[in-house]
Amino acid sequence: MNQAYNDLETRFRRWSAVRDAAGMLHWDLAAIMPEGGHHARAEQLAALGVVAHQMLSDPKTGELLDEAEAKNGLSNWQSANLVEMRRLYIHATALDSNLVEAMSKANSAAESAWRVARPAADFKAVQPQLETVFKLVREAAHAKAEKLGVSPYEALMDEHEPGNRTADINVIFDNYGAFLPDFLERVLERQAREGAPIQPKGPFPVAAQKALGERVMKTIGFDFKYGRLDTSLHPICGGVPDDVRITTRYTEEQVATALMGIIHETGHAMYERGLPADWRLQPVGYARGMALHESQSLLVEMQASRGKDFCAYLSPILNEVFPGNEDAFAPDNLQRLYSRVSRGFIRVDADEVTYPAHVILRYRLEQALIADDLKVADIPAAWNEGMQKLLGITPPSDREGCLQDIHWFDGGIGYFPCYSLGAMTAAQLYEAACTANPAIPGAIGKGDFGPLMAWLRPNVHERGSSMTTAEIVTAATGRPLDVEVFKKHLKRRYLPN
Amino acid sequence: MNQAYNDLETRFRRWSAVRDAAGMLHWDLAAIMPEGGHHARAEQLAALGVVAHQMLSDPKTGELLDEAEAKNGLSNWQSANLVEMRRLYIHATALDSNLVEAMSKANSAAESAWRVARPAADFKAVQPQLETVFKLVREAAHAKAEKLGVSPYEALMDEHEPGNRTADINVIFDNYGAFLPDFLERVLERQAREGAPIQPKGPFPVAAQKALGERVMKTIGFDFKYGRLDTSLHPICGGVPDDVRITTRYTEEQVATALMGIIHETGHAMYERGLPADWRLQPVGYARGMALHESQSLLVEMQASRGKDFCAYLSPILNEVFPGNEDAFAPDNLQRLYSRVSRGFIRVDADEVTYPAHVILRYRLEQALIADDLKVADIPAAWNEGMQKLLGITPPSDREGCLQDIHWFDGGIGYFPCYSLGAMTAAQLYEAACTANPAIPGAIGKGDFGPLMAWLRPNVHERGSSMTTAEIVTAATGRPLDVEVFKKHLKRRYLPN
Repeated sequence: MNQAYNDLETRFRRWSAVRDAAGMLHWDLAAIMPEGGHHARAEQLAALGVVAHQMLSDPKTGELLDEAEAKNGLSNWQSANLVEMRRLYIHATALDSNLVEAMSKANSAAESAWRVARPAADFKAVQPQLETVFKLVREAAHAKAEKLGVSPYEALMDEHEPGNRTADINVIFDNYGAFLPDFLERVLERQAREGAPIQPKGPFPVAAQKALGERVMKTIGFDFKYGRLDTSLHPICGGVPDDVRITTRYTEEQVATALMGIIHETGHAMYERGLPADWRLQPVGYARGMALHESQSLLVEMQASRGKDFCAYLSPILNEVFPGNEDAFAPDNLQRLYSRVSRGFIRVDADEVTYPAHVILRYRLEQALIADDLKVADIPAAWNEGMQKLLGITPPSDREGCLQDIHWFDGGIGYFPCYSLGAMTAAQLYEAACTANPAIPGAIGKGDFGPLMAWLRPNVHERGSSMTTAEIVTAATGRPLDVEVFKKHLKRRYLPN
Repeated sequence: MNQAYNDLETRFRRWSAVRDAAGMLHWDLAAIMPEGGHHARAEQLAALGVVAHQMLSDPKTGELLDEAEAKNGLSNWQSANLVEMRRLYIHATALDSNLVEAMSKANSAAESAWRVARPAADFKAVQPQLETVFKLVREAAHAKAEKLGVSPYEALMDEHEPGNRTADINVIFDNYGAFLPDFLERVLERQAREGAPIQPKGPFPVAAQKALGERVMKTIGFDFKYGRLDTSLHPICGGVPDDVRITTRYTEEQVATALMGIIHETGHAMYERGLPADWRLQPVGYARGMALHESQSLLVEMQASRGKDFCAYLSPILNEVFPGNEDAFAPDNLQRLYSRVSRGFIRVDADEVTYPAHVILRYRLEQALIADDLKVADIPAAWNEGMQKLLGITPPSDREGCLQDIHWFDGGIGYFPCYSLGAMTAAQLYEAACTANPAIPGAIGKGDFGPLMAWLRPNVHERGSSMTTAEIVTAATGRPLDVEVFKKHLKRRYLPN
């Protein structure tokens, strides 16, 4: 009997419910809120944020943690839950409230300046604000690093994917950075030789696209009793495990993009749905981290759905729903549409081959900035140099370079690596799944994701946060994350024979 | 400078934002939540409820109230805000937490029993549970009565419409109860003589009904920048003043009902939109109470939209959207459809003439039950006797009688009077508006609600909770609520010439 632990479960249940409430309201804001509701919603979210932070950082939480940790008698899951509780408590209490407030103000100032600087391609106009952002983030990183016993940059990553270590990531990213230039050159040569795939011709009415999306979601295993599909400017997977809200966006000119967007978010949704039902509203019952979450969306999208099996399944369905594009929707052409590679400046538009280059560049710059080895003033030059080295291109201006997205200006440092770690993890998990059950690809070719999900659930989803990501990957695949599996996947898809 | 008051504003701003967040999630639950999300949502709402209650009942709130009340230097609005804060604090702290828990359990038990007892028309099966409910509500009423300085039943009403006094309501309801039997008889005779109006023939596709509803909402003045129209089983007006979410339900067979449902909720929505913008998130900035809220929906629906002016405006629009029903949608026939009266057992299906009978009956029984002058066991007999006296009919079984709706079984006592007080207030406000600006009915006949809203905003909406309902009515119409105005309205509409 560990009463302190039991009391913590009660506390964290309420805290989680408040956070989940805020999550639902975030989804509402992104998906359906009328424009005039912004101010009221900001007040609601701020109030819930303050309330949740007070609950978590309450000294009583710390006392209970000390007591519970000093006692025994916990199951493995309870122990893992306690570890997560401590981690959350450290993040909530590591920073002085003056620092938190200063960061919030600095981020707002930098974000506002960025909105002007980006269209003008004027980095200097936002440089002072960005210097303040990095100065404060560095301070926060050091404060958290001390309490977590990791390096400052690792402390920042810990907010998004606990357990990420730069020593491991450096090896993986350096390997891929070295592999990419030559591989990319060969893929582009091959695709140039083959010629461009046939583009399907719209318009593709939105209502029909949505109906198709819902049909494909059901194929993947999404149960609409426990979630919704809506529309938002930026596709998201929101909500809670028993009420998952995914969104996408449509254009009448394009059907392929929105459909893959839905499939991607459905991968996230299936992870949420599969989280351990016995541990709802406890820290250990939530998704492990952003990299593993991204691995689940990319596994369903990149591994399972952009491959030839699923394209063969999808082809007649597309012909049925949108007749008149039989050439474009032929399985081979469809797969070529879904595996087009190009050198580009913009991360969010990148394909799976070049995407890691964008991530590796940011990861390296972030580390240098947090270590104070790189000055903010030198970001543009460092960015362009890194782009040239990794992708062989130089942005025409900072608008297509270091000003291209908001994240740094909003104080978001330490989560970019998750995208590519997720992509690599997806490849490794999918390979392990297909090795464990070789019927998986064939089933997907028949629109049956059951065998894949039957493997993912116990090996990933149902683990919740009871193990680290590295432990989950090792238990599921027999070894830690290995970039070679991802490279093998790319070679097979982009340079077959 | 009244620092205690300023601190209270800060507290109540956060408290209000948490309550508003819960309000948004209630709307989501009613309108769009997938079925499987119920348990998670219940946890979220429970957590927000506990958090809000803790914030409000915190002893520090009481200390600040004492301090702020002891000082001067407040504006009229601030003083009114302080009065509302005190009232909310009393409601939050008057009840012992054991009683609150016991009530919650008793309500759940009675609600469950009612779900079985109602279809079986078996009052005895739910009687013990209902006895517990009334016993505890009585206890709560006494506890609140003492702190509020009113009678126990008035204390219950105070939760829904502060300031309601039984002495006033008795006069009004007794008057109407005496007026109704003969009046109803004459209306029914007249309608029988005229024959039934022509019923429009569907189907009326839901999408077209929704588009029509949105068009009519805009006509009334609803701005979709600040709200939405959605679908739910029970129509509601939810959300917050700058993000008002109304819902309705449709059947393809019927167009008139859903449209009036939308118009009704739009009346609620216009009140919310018109609340004083300077007092958002402060108690004084919220709607006064349920009776006044209902007066705004009924004013727009019953007074403004079921009258001949609006029917003349609506007729060509209905013909345009749903051609083929020109006879049924002729202005005269439309108005007869919208003013059909009948004797019925079910409150929620009642017309504006007979609706007060249902309310008066419940009001009388509730008072007797709270005063312990009526035993729960005697409810069925008292119900049937009251029905016979007021409407001249006797329910064939308790299913159509005292078991017809959930409210008592859910512990909801003291709010029924609001419906009819709202209807009567609507008549009086509309008459005053038309006296102040005789152009109002003509404008409504042209689809222009601007003049009506221009009167309602300063006279009702923008008052928020800065005055009592009686003060608002008196200031707006020159006298307290007077049932004769409502009767005059009914005579004019149902027994013209």
